[in-house]
Amino acid sequence: MSKINLQTPKGFRDFLPAESSRRRFAVEKIRNVLEKFGFEPLETPAVEYTEVLKGKYGDEEKLIFEFTDRGGRQVALKYDQTVPLARVVASNPTLPRPFKRYQIQPAWRAENPQRGRFREFTQIDFDTVGSNSLLADAEIVAATISAVKELGFEKFVLKINDRETFKGMPIEAIRVIDKLAKIGEDGVIEQLKKVGYDTKEAKSLLKRLKDSSPTKAIKDLFKILGDYKLEADKYAFDPTLARGLDYYTSIVYELEIEGYSAGSVGAGGRYDNLIGRFTGEKIPAVGFAFGLDRLMEAAEELNLFDPYQLTTRILVTVFNEKLLKDSLALVAALRKQGIAAEISLDPTEKLDKQLKYADNKGIPFVAILGPEEAKTKTVTFKNLGSGEQKNLKITELLKKLK
Amino acid sequence: MSKINLQTPKGFRDFLPAESSRRRFAVEKIRNVLEKFGFEPLETPAVEYTEVLKGKYGDEEKLIFEFTDRGGRQVALKYDQTVPLARVVASNPTLPRPFKRYQIQPAWRAENPQRGRFREFTQIDFDTVGSNSLLADAEIVAATISAVKELGFEKFVLKINDRETFKGMPIEAIRVIDKLAKIGEDGVIEQLKKVGYDTKEAKSLLKRLKDSSPTKAIKDLFKILGDYKLEADKYAFDPTLARGLDYYTSIVYELEIEGYSAGSVGAGGRYDNLIGRFTGEKIPAVGFAFGLDRLMEAAEELNLFDPYQLTTRILVTVFNEKLLKDSLALVAALRKQGIAAEISLDPTEKLDKQLKYADNKGIPFVAILGPEEAKTKTVTFKNLGSGEQKNLKITELLKKLK
Repeated sequence: MSKINLQTPKGFRDFLPAESSRRRFAVEKIRNVLEKFGFEPLETPAVEYTEVLKGKYGDEEKLIFEFTDRGGRQVALKYDQTVPLARVVASNPTLPRPFKRYQIQPAWRAENPQRGRFREFTQIDFDTVGSNSLLADAEIVAATISAVKELGFEKFVLKINDRETFKGMPIEAIRVIDKLAKIGEDGVIEQLKKVGYDTKEAKSLLKRLKDSSPTKAIKDLFKILGDYKLEADKYAFDPTLARGLDYYTSIVYELEIEGYSAGSVGAGGRYDNLIGRFTGEKIPAVGFAFGLDRLMEAAEELNLFDPYQLTTRILVTVFNEKLLKDSLALVAALRKQGIAAEISLDPTEKLDKQLKYADNKGIPFVAILGPEEAKTKTVTFKNLGSGEQKNLKITELLKKLK
Repeated sequence: MSKINLQTPKGFRDFLPAESSRRRFAVEKIRNVLEKFGFEPLETPAVEYTEVLKGKYGDEEKLIFEFTDRGGRQVALKYDQTVPLARVVASNPTLPRPFKRYQIQPAWRAENPQRGRFREFTQIDFDTVGSNSLLADAEIVAATISAVKELGFEKFVLKINDRETFKGMPIEAIRVIDKLAKIGEDGVIEQLKKVGYDTKEAKSLLKRLKDSSPTKAIKDLFKILGDYKLEADKYAFDPTLARGLDYYTSIVYELEIEGYSAGSVGAGGRYDNLIGRFTGEKIPAVGFAFGLDRLMEAAEELNLFDPYQLTTRILVTVFNEKLLKDSLALVAALRKQGIAAEISLDPTEKLDKQLKYADNKGIPFVAILGPEEAKTKTVTFKNLGSGEQKNLKITELLKKLK
């Protein structure tokens, strides 16, 4: 045996069955909400030409995972789902618009790994392309709030701002403001000084921002949101919300869950100029992305999910090689009825050990098929939780489990 | 606008809504079958340390997508799900065994792209780790056949062989035999000559293989398969089936669908020594992998799937800015009832254009809410297929669509 590193690379993770199953549960809940809002599925590849990604993310672009293809071309792992969406829209001009799509796929960023921050993470994006109506923004807000509630979260707020609030401010300052929740006011003032403000200017800028009134777009958006009859404490105007990414042009969002402190669990906004950078034609767009990994961390901290339950409902034991065919016929019949069933894989194993396998895995029921049962076309049906057992006809067993 | 290449890299693809939706349909069908057989979900990262992958795939290893991490470490996109599974089992010694897992994820190979062969492709793997019982092999066969039938395929065969058939043959010759279906007997003889056989030896080797009797493992396996009452024409002994990958040790499989000629749509086998290369401890394993992309190509050629149908059932139109709030209340009420509904995003757009959007997208129904309807708390409900329309109370509409 050669000594091989058994670790995943730093910032990359395995998801064992319990966690993988919970992730799927959350994904399906959100997917259902998004489809209810009329978003359609889209998938794009993990790898893009580097030139497609470059120049879209501002300062963050240094975190792109780049490499050289076999053909000597510069390629990269995708950094988000938004720029690939822009490429898809640009290269498929016949897609009916408004084009409403969702995309549930990983993205990769060479971040310094920490809680809530991984190098491979799953995004649940949904965007409306080709509408500059505020109603499109409002639909994004309504879908976001609906999805978060569907997952079982009760205390959360979608913070909303308009990039207009920062009009005239350099992007470097906006990026500093974006860190307010993380580094606090003193931290922001310190960092503003590094990008050219003196202490007084920095303090006054921060005060001016905090006292900003909602822009016209914000006011109009909130009026529409009122008509959805969304709970009013689920969204709020936050004049200091910035979002670091370069491509946002007006309304921006950030989703915070009370009790989860590792950062926002989703964010988005309107980006009316990004797609035009691929096509020349200006195509407005607005969207939101949930960070599945953070959502899962938050849900686990708040204990929102039921404990993992294996799908298998029943284990069919095998008495010996001779009776194997009866057990095989039973497990096939159970599955035919749509009942998730396993068969003990080792016919030479003692019954005790077979029951222990079921117990370890959390399989709730066991069907024992010995010589007596085979003779009478019955099974001994055992509930591993209560320890109860009874003799049932095979037809009765199928009926009971269905 | 800078001139950017809008293509995906060679061998990488986008999946637009219709195709993405069909892929998900197929994945969910197979997932349900696998869960019915007691396999549990697992996910592993896209990126692995290169040393984990190297030395496992034989000659094919040159197709691994390698690159250098920011920290200067050699990493690679995963080449399959099997070697990552081996790493997971080796690094999680407390996982209960037999460990039965499925994994539905992409893998990457720097292949020359052609029909049925892409650089990014999705595998649906399922494996049983920790059992050397032939019953574990039989379960893999039964699950495979069950899944393929569930997708709607009727004419297919799972070819089965035992690596034992090739005992004493060098791996180079086995790799040539593996191409028999693709390059024919003459091709195989030509290539065998390149690895050291003369014509006579090559012909005699091929004849000897074709006339081989089933090994003991094959006979025992087929006896078990008989007890499942699987249709006998769905699996067959094929003494020339080789499988190129290095890590198989006994039974191997390949799934062929009649009418699809671009290659096998799935393959697998027993690999009792692979996990031991990570742990030192010998841990037997057997499994199968569907190639989703080829399955989809085969299903499309055979016209197995219904045409794509958007989830949205109804479009709520917007008469004007003033009546927007009534339309918003209606769309919110529809969604609350679980009905997938969209609202026209541009309140200034003419009704005609709103109806055209629904028609283009294939939304079957439209709810029109004008001043009359608002006054009487009704909607005009229009079936875009038949052109029929009638006036309904909102409660009636909700009931009708539920």
